[in-house]
Amino acid sequence: MLQFATILAKERPAINRAVDSLTNSLPEHVRPAAAYALGSGGKRLRPLLVVLMARAMGCQDDGVYALGATAELFHVATLLHDDILDNADLRRGRESTHRRFGVPCTLLTADAMFSRAFQALAETGDPRCVSCLCRAVIGTVDGEIMEIDNQGRTNGLEDYYKIIEGKTAYLLRASCELGAIKANADEARIQAACDYGYNLGMAFQIVDDALDFAPSEKTGKPEGGDILEGKFTPPICYYMESLDPESRNAFRSKFAALSFSEEERAAIVEAVRANGFQERTLRLADTFLDKASNALDRIAPESSQGVRAVSVLREAVSFVRNRAS
Amino acid sequence: MLQFATILAKERPAINRAVDSLTNSLPEHVRPAAAYALGSGGKRLRPLLVVLMARAMGCQDDGVYALGATAELFHVATLLHDDILDNADLRRGRESTHRRFGVPCTLLTADAMFSRAFQALAETGDPRCVSCLCRAVIGTVDGEIMEIDNQGRTNGLEDYYKIIEGKTAYLLRASCELGAIKANADEARIQAACDYGYNLGMAFQIVDDALDFAPSEKTGKPEGGDILEGKFTPPICYYMESLDPESRNAFRSKFAALSFSEEERAAIVEAVRANGFQERTLRLADTFLDKASNALDRIAPESSQGVRAVSVLREAVSFVRNRAS
Repeated sequence: MLQFATILAKERPAINRAVDSLTNSLPEHVRPAAAYALGSGGKRLRPLLVVLMARAMGCQDDGVYALGATAELFHVATLLHDDILDNADLRRGRESTHRRFGVPCTLLTADAMFSRAFQALAETGDPRCVSCLCRAVIGTVDGEIMEIDNQGRTNGLEDYYKIIEGKTAYLLRASCELGAIKANADEARIQAACDYGYNLGMAFQIVDDALDFAPSEKTGKPEGGDILEGKFTPPICYYMESLDPESRNAFRSKFAALSFSEEERAAIVEAVRANGFQERTLRLADTFLDKASNALDRIAPESSQGVRAVSVLREAVSFVRNRAS
Repeated sequence: MLQFATILAKERPAINRAVDSLTNSLPEHVRPAAAYALGSGGKRLRPLLVVLMARAMGCQDDGVYALGATAELFHVATLLHDDILDNADLRRGRESTHRRFGVPCTLLTADAMFSRAFQALAETGDPRCVSCLCRAVIGTVDGEIMEIDNQGRTNGLEDYYKIIEGKTAYLLRASCELGAIKANADEARIQAACDYGYNLGMAFQIVDDALDFAPSEKTGKPEGGDILEGKFTPPICYYMESLDPESRNAFRSKFAALSFSEEERAAIVEAVRANGFQERTLRLADTFLDKASNALDRIAPESSQGVRAVSVLREAVSFVRNRAS
């Protein structure tokens, strides 16, 4: 963990400078809300993936930071639209951007952020950079709309996988792909980068959905919130499958109507814990983390800097796994 | 006018096929709302500008239609976000997309449409195509936020010009630029294309703002609606300047508070008409139309097809002017 934290601390200032520089290039009426949203102390995970993957594949160029900044703009722009749709008052512990700047300004600012990020990618002169992020944004949106459509539905895990691909995995995959493209990697290594990012993202979201059943004091979030919101995640799926047919039908109706009482929610949380459905969900995440790890084996770094970057990317795999322990 | 109408009727099927093809390439959960929004019988003005400008500069390639389709996606995506912000129930006489598909799906679908259009531009392999549309979208957003910020303000026409540049002129300019790029035009002709589109767009919006004071039976819209909405347009500016200092201050306060009564609105409409402030606004539009016309003189088409396209573009100038007569 030490190495991961060290690298993060070391790279973050350069990433933040690149994000600031991109933000400052936005026009006058867009800049304030964008600067507020981007300055909220995010982890900068996506830019870090861009930088590390490029380094792993032998890229020495400091242009990776500017490229990483675009991934952060995409990420934060999607969060701005999400928070508007969720009517969220807070983001990362402070007032959400649309509460501060109003919905019209925030909605439009996110549009400008998308466009500015695409422009920066176009300026690299490599159309693959634009294409890879376009695919990611379109996939993200498709996943988000599918999540809305599927609220209250108990359609099995196939739909769930498609939703979390969109919500989380596609942008992490694109971040890794961007780094590999920047390093002029060959097709096989670009694919390895994509596989790493995709599987890391899938695992990240699955662990998140297992943590929905962890004690509030650990996560700072209500326990079993997904039950009330009608999000059909693996622990909920395993729970439903464990019920006899009659109880299962009753569960389905209440889940569809988003009508569980506080007591019912608490009882389901209890049952998920007692039956080890959290652990079973984490084992599911492990299958994706194993694939992420295997993808790293195909990178074969050629410099000591590359070896170091791969080892940090490998630590990120443990980091995702260990969030839940 | 006959030639313009003929060309429109002739080109529209090919443009619509390209728009449909781009729409059908959107993923499953995005496609229905996008197809609904794009199928609403728009004029397809922006794709037509792409096609005509490319033809004017000697491009024979039918790839212009796909390029034109991207301009329509950008335009309609901005309309979707605008309609959400304006809480509009209708668009082009039918139920607005967010009323039909819900705000979350519509807001996100527009994001996917932006991204899909950028992707199509990236696939041309010419980074100038992406860049030119990125600049246009960013400028559009900047203008829209400025319009919101300026509501109720009486800051003079400089701010007004900046707002309508964003709202209308930048995307028309980009459409013309796209056509010129597709035709492999040199810098001077690309600039001529930009100047034409920009000035046509400025004039179009100014004529629109003059028409706000035309009789309802002609426009189908309330007379002087901009007075109530706090939009400081040229006729309103001329009216305010015609007042004595005391009345001007009273006007300013009411305009800022959006608090004009029905009777006051009607009296202002009357005064604008009686004092010829509509005609003065149209003369302002004429200065932009003259510039658009001059820009066409610099295109110097080299084929009979090019000559024909330029003459249609010249008719578009008269068309904008004649909307108000």
